[in-house]
Amino acid sequence: MIHNSPIRPERIGDDIDALAAITEPDRPYTRRAFTPTFLAGRRWLAQAMQQAGAQTRIDAAGNLIGTITGQRPELGTIMLGSHSDTVPDGGRFDGIAGVVAALEVVRALREQEIRLDHTLELVDFVAEEVSIFGVSCIGSRGMSGTRPAEWLTRASDGLTLEQAILGVGGDPRCEGRRDDILAFLELHIEQGPVLQDHKLDVGVVTAIAGITRIEILVEGRADHAGTTPMGLRKDALTTAAWIALGVEELAKALASGDEHFAATVGEFEMLPNAANVVPARVRMLIDARAELRQDMERFIDELGKGVAAIGEKTGVSISEPRIVSDNPPTPLDADLLGALDGACEAAGARHRRMASGAGHDTAWMARITKAAMIFVPCKDGRSHTPDEYATTHDIALGAAVLLDAVKALDIKLQENI
Amino acid sequence: MIHNSPIRPERIGDDIDALAAITEPDRPYTRRAFTPTFLAGRRWLAQAMQQAGAQTRIDAAGNLIGTITGQRPELGTIMLGSHSDTVPDGGRFDGIAGVVAALEVVRALREQEIRLDHTLELVDFVAEEVSIFGVSCIGSRGMSGTRPAEWLTRASDGLTLEQAILGVGGDPRCEGRRDDILAFLELHIEQGPVLQDHKLDVGVVTAIAGITRIEILVEGRADHAGTTPMGLRKDALTTAAWIALGVEELAKALASGDEHFAATVGEFEMLPNAANVVPARVRMLIDARAELRQDMERFIDELGKGVAAIGEKTGVSISEPRIVSDNPPTPLDADLLGALDGACEAAGARHRRMASGAGHDTAWMARITKAAMIFVPCKDGRSHTPDEYATTHDIALGAAVLLDAVKALDIKLQENI
Repeated sequence: MIHNSPIRPERIGDDIDALAAITEPDRPYTRRAFTPTFLAGRRWLAQAMQQAGAQTRIDAAGNLIGTITGQRPELGTIMLGSHSDTVPDGGRFDGIAGVVAALEVVRALREQEIRLDHTLELVDFVAEEVSIFGVSCIGSRGMSGTRPAEWLTRASDGLTLEQAILGVGGDPRCEGRRDDILAFLELHIEQGPVLQDHKLDVGVVTAIAGITRIEILVEGRADHAGTTPMGLRKDALTTAAWIALGVEELAKALASGDEHFAATVGEFEMLPNAANVVPARVRMLIDARAELRQDMERFIDELGKGVAAIGEKTGVSISEPRIVSDNPPTPLDADLLGALDGACEAAGARHRRMASGAGHDTAWMARITKAAMIFVPCKDGRSHTPDEYATTHDIALGAAVLLDAVKALDIKLQENI
Repeated sequence: MIHNSPIRPERIGDDIDALAAITEPDRPYTRRAFTPTFLAGRRWLAQAMQQAGAQTRIDAAGNLIGTITGQRPELGTIMLGSHSDTVPDGGRFDGIAGVVAALEVVRALREQEIRLDHTLELVDFVAEEVSIFGVSCIGSRGMSGTRPAEWLTRASDGLTLEQAILGVGGDPRCEGRRDDILAFLELHIEQGPVLQDHKLDVGVVTAIAGITRIEILVEGRADHAGTTPMGLRKDALTTAAWIALGVEELAKALASGDEHFAATVGEFEMLPNAANVVPARVRMLIDARAELRQDMERFIDELGKGVAAIGEKTGVSISEPRIVSDNPPTPLDADLLGALDGACEAAGARHRRMASGAGHDTAWMARITKAAMIFVPCKDGRSHTPDEYATTHDIALGAAVLLDAVKALDIKLQENI
């Protein structure tokens, strides 16, 4: 039971169990976008939407949409949702919690016999996770008109993305950009430990952090490990070790303020990787996330200087850090954040504002509408693993926040908040 | 021309060119033990030994032996040699220089019409390099009676080592240990930069360094790189970076004395090695080489303490360093070192004493006889690559030293040096 709310946690739990059961044989929990298993999940989901009173369709981008037409549909649409696809060997909650919570909001509204003025839409975005085509957020990019045209010809296992979107019932040749959506809200598990550590129920997400990936190549010399005196080496590994520690130190300094910053050397490959050869070459890929663009700019600047200083000290050649990809942060809508704060208070949810270090469909929806999202706690911050866990109660409390926010927005959006 | 010596550099150059031409098609320079290419090299070598007046045979261990019977064969045998096998994509000099130099010593003796009292044997040890069976020094271990019996059943590509030794003409069921050898000398390229850097002609090798391999496992936690705050991570990479730098610092301190010491993190593997995941696990393999056993013991001790302190500081779990293999140093024979110093003086070779950081057949021969070796310079210390290079003059000067040493030993060994 969620106090003073028509949201029913047991229904949320049942929905999550039902979707968890739809997985690749003997491989929990795997429901990758565009696969038959994914389509089986969607059939279940469309039926659940219909039972909740929604009309379902697949939009041009390949997203599953459930529509509850408002009393004054000409006002425009409020949209709620997330994604039902998973990574390989993923969890039961990433994305799914948001789809199921949105579904429960619709059921609760119907039971309360509330019919909004605005049309309410539920969405299950296709391929939020990195798909077999090597790219992510295909559905939300399609809906926001930001899916690169050249993606359609990407192929995997003899299938193009164009064919895959057709296969789920979309129409890849259509411009999928929507201009009738007034607000988009997403509930998602945090995928980090902050809410759990602070014993909070909800994170009101202020921004989706920018993600910048930076590659560094260290070029040492492959000398004989037994015969080359210590003072005459150009060891790529020890130089790379200084860089990895420098990245950590710099990230810790930038993370010491209130705004989110993190940097990780996630990929690290060494050659020749032979016991008796001094390491000749290391490739490092840095993943940096910043809530504030100025933090990222400072990181890139200081990284360049730091790497040059390390090369000077060790005498080993280091490439100029190369920016492989660079997505700026997406601040979320201030009005919606206010509405979500208010809804947390109304629902009795202990809450805080926080940035999202992970990317989400919400970042793409922010291109075309007011957008915001809330986080619910997940166990030990773990995700993308079968061990991923969030309690039904926590998801239900988040759904209660969404419900209150939707009801409030149905009024406020008419007041030009 | 080597001053005052019958050694003829041009013959050495011709021999090296001839062996270099015997390589896998379009793959310089690859003549791995037990392959048809290796056998082709041996046919050439046996013929060259015969032309120099030696009688050839394959011993029980699979080594090619060329014998010049002495005037008083009952005195015993002086043996010279090295190995003609290469690593894949190896060089023209590693091992080969020593075989060819020994051959030239025999030719020079014959031209000078010198017949030693002792029997002189040339040897081409089989499989000094790591073979397809994953082990090295198979021939010298066989000749010294130290080849583990269980090695014979090792298999690769459907062939056992037992079959492979039969295939080169050996007899793996025979005890191959020799007890008639009074002295063994090997010439080898340094495989390090010391002689080149000090503008020296010859290194008189005091010891073959001990080799100890130590594995360390760092166990962090695979958190989301975007969402996990810097202060809440257990990053296996940054902890491993501290260890790599600690190994280098410790090795530099131990190498600061006169005795050889080196340590290298040669293998380094990180999991999951995904851009957006905090590194969960690193496996490191340390290769440590010490001329003095006490240095190795100190290294192992300090490494254990250092690793524990790093784990304490970073909060990441690190396994106790595990000794994977541990071969003690092999001091070489003092009498032979004296003879080699004297021969360097006689030949006009600028020389110094030094340890070998690399393993050699000489280390195994030292189990059954007085053994020593000399190094000749190689370009930039490079080996195990087609770029490996040593000048014909330097090899010839080394051969002149061997020639002088052999002549001196033929007398001194009768005096019970």
